[in-house]
Amino acid sequence: MADESLFEFLHLEIVSHIFSQQSGKGEMDNKDRAVCISVLEAMGFRVGQGLIERLTRDSPSFKDELDIMKFVCKDFWTKVFRRQVDNLRTNHQGTYVLQDNKFALLTQLSNGKQYLDQAPKYLAFSCGVVRGALSNLGLESVVTAEVSSMPSCKFQVVIQKS
Amino acid sequence: MADESLFEFLHLEIVSHIFSQQSGKGEMDNKDRAVCISVLEAMGFRVGQGLIERLTRDSPSFKDELDIMKFVCKDFWTKVFRRQVDNLRTNHQGTYVLQDNKFALLTQLSNGKQYLDQAPKYLAFSCGVVRGALSNLGLESVVTAEVSSMPSCKFQVVIQKS
Repeated sequence: MADESLFEFLHLEIVSHIFSQQSGKGEMDNKDRAVCISVLEAMGFRVGQGLIERLTRDSPSFKDELDIMKFVCKDFWTKVFRRQVDNLRTNHQGTYVLQDNKFALLTQLSNGKQYLDQAPKYLAFSCGVVRGALSNLGLESVVTAEVSSMPSCKFQVVIQKS
Repeated sequence: MADESLFEFLHLEIVSHIFSQQSGKGEMDNKDRAVCISVLEAMGFRVGQGLIERLTRDSPSFKDELDIMKFVCKDFWTKVFRRQVDNLRTNHQGTYVLQDNKFALLTQLSNGKQYLDQAPKYLAFSCGVVRGALSNLGLESVVTAEVSSMPSCKFQVVIQKS
């Protein structure tokens, strides 16, 4: 129990630290917010890289992109966010939508639509985690998250073809 | 497994982020290092406060200071650092030494004495966690950590009498 709270509490602290640092320099505009988001995303990226290395140590190799995405939605998601993705959709052209109806890092916020504008700062780290994991599996991607009603969350993964 | 790595990786990221931010402003002196340490300690403090609230929700109340310290060394330590404290000593005048022979946040560093000078930055957060937990149990304290050979670590807790 505390293991997961430990991570969640530290995550809240780091989000608030990074934002308060920027806002300490004066009124925050969209550019400042984007800087904070990208700092969090970059942290997540490196954490995702580290995690996937451990998780795939004993896995057989993956046969294709969809196989990797399924692994991320099941095994990786379960280890990191404590549940499987509820729904995975793809257009079979490199775009994937992962829907988690009860996303771990949003369960501490009020449900519903009241704090929707706050969601991006609590999702940036996780987007980075997913991007970092995919990157170490050989897939460069752009990962964004969208919330229409907490704690449900949709991650969109767009694989960058090289 | 990944749950704990998740926390450990995020912890490494936050330590490196805070130090690189300070060092980005130029050569770091002792004062800069102290600022970083205290930022980490403050984060730990709030995390410790949060954790102890959850952990003691269903506990009976404690009968004295020693009882609290024993709880911290056993239950709290196990939940947060995944093992019990190996040794607890006290002078019965408010000073406690908690020895952990294999401290969770030092196991990722090389064993032995080579990187001893790096230890404080990886222990500041944990000192804060312990201080935060004790604070929410009604004990104001000063918590410091000392390493003579990794990954073994001694935490000294000095209770502040009011």
